[in-house]
Amino acid sequence: MAEAAPKIRLFVEGALGPGAQVMLSPDQAHYLFNVMRATHGTEVAVFNGRDGEWTGPVTRTGRLGGSVTCRAPGRPQRRPPDLWLVFAPIKKARTDFIVEKAAELGAARVLPVFTRHTNAARVQPDRLRAHAIEAAEQCGETFVLDIAPPVRLEALLDAWDPGRRLVFCDESRAAVPAAAALAEAAPNSAPGPWAILIGPEGGFAPEEAARLRALPYVLPVTLGPRVLRADTAAVAAITLWQALLGDWR
Amino acid sequence: MAEAAPKIRLFVEGALGPGAQVMLSPDQAHYLFNVMRATHGTEVAVFNGRDGEWTGPVTRTGRLGGSVTCRAPGRPQRRPPDLWLVFAPIKKARTDFIVEKAAELGAARVLPVFTRHTNAARVQPDRLRAHAIEAAEQCGETFVLDIAPPVRLEALLDAWDPGRRLVFCDESRAAVPAAAALAEAAPNSAPGPWAILIGPEGGFAPEEAARLRALPYVLPVTLGPRVLRADTAAVAAITLWQALLGDWR
Repeated sequence: MAEAAPKIRLFVEGALGPGAQVMLSPDQAHYLFNVMRATHGTEVAVFNGRDGEWTGPVTRTGRLGGSVTCRAPGRPQRRPPDLWLVFAPIKKARTDFIVEKAAELGAARVLPVFTRHTNAARVQPDRLRAHAIEAAEQCGETFVLDIAPPVRLEALLDAWDPGRRLVFCDESRAAVPAAAALAEAAPNSAPGPWAILIGPEGGFAPEEAARLRALPYVLPVTLGPRVLRADTAAVAAITLWQALLGDWR
Repeated sequence: MAEAAPKIRLFVEGALGPGAQVMLSPDQAHYLFNVMRATHGTEVAVFNGRDGEWTGPVTRTGRLGGSVTCRAPGRPQRRPPDLWLVFAPIKKARTDFIVEKAAELGAARVLPVFTRHTNAARVQPDRLRAHAIEAAEQCGETFVLDIAPPVRLEALLDAWDPGRRLVFCDESRAAVPAAAALAEAAPNSAPGPWAILIGPEGGFAPEEAARLRALPYVLPVTLGPRVLRADTAAVAAITLWQALLGDWR
């Protein structure tokens, strides 16, 4: 009978491969030995976002240290589809939530953007990365969502690769329902590079919306008749993209 | 030029109609007069889940009281599609989140169920109703999501109306992708009564999953290759249903 899969999955920075030994952070060692009551030899899974998942026994080192020795390969390294989420940061807890959900749903990268009406004064990329890592540990992914440095929307659009289509969640009710627009845009083969843009709580400024609607790579869509919060819109739009064009098919 | 729409929307219990005066709760009066700095005559919108939205001026009464007089009808009373969300309660913050999102996305009713592996000891319907009301105030709905009393899954299924189809988010990977299954089930006209079932963190017990798969009204679906948290799965499933069968079309 197959051994039960290890329950604990940890993200590590070091290289993984047959026999490789990777150090755990003091926080991870505390979690493992004090919270989860792991002992010498407990099997855990580790991944670093590059080398796939590996399982192996833990070794305790001193009071606050530990390491894992890679013994058997687990899940292979994967990459999600090339889908970015571009979003205007909102309140801290809801921004954290957007990152957690983008990772779970299988986006490749999130890009915080500042728009005319963005209220959140700053973004902490390290904090967002910690949420992305925790979500990957939780949802069984070997990939870690990439967190781009914050940028102004205008600068982002100035440098945009026109080969990457951009789903613009347009609050004006003139746009096409998202599912119909995405189904029509769905190719038979791989979808290529895409992004989703979610505006701030106050919506886009008229000149921002006008610029977006005029760009040839932009696909304006609506997400139903209700006013969605930005975090809800982000989850809904990634879900529809994944189900209609991505790796949920 | 049209008057700007009132920014403040409040849920009230009393009946609404031309000239009707409805009392505000002490919390609402505090919010309105102390937090939002409303004064005598400030225009607000009120709704009660039955009589549509009405706008009118506020009157301050004493230190902690206030009322609104209905002057003009606002948004008409709506009902979302007949979609229920059946979910196993999880940690408090994530359960609150599920209710908020179900309301925003336009479900009609949520039903907390206890399954074999449900850990959350109890559910506070009043707390969930407060989240549903806040979400309706926020997202411009005139309808308030209905919160059913908690029930055991077995009892719920024993009494189930077989005319209501049930989307079962099945963690076994044998099920059909949700978008394909829902698109195939989509009628040309109104979709009729539906429900979505989301399991607890530990998944369904084998006998629960077996019973569900054998029921004629159950549609087992998968939500992509990643392990989604229960709250993420709830949002994703409602989104797909609304986009493919509901009022987002």
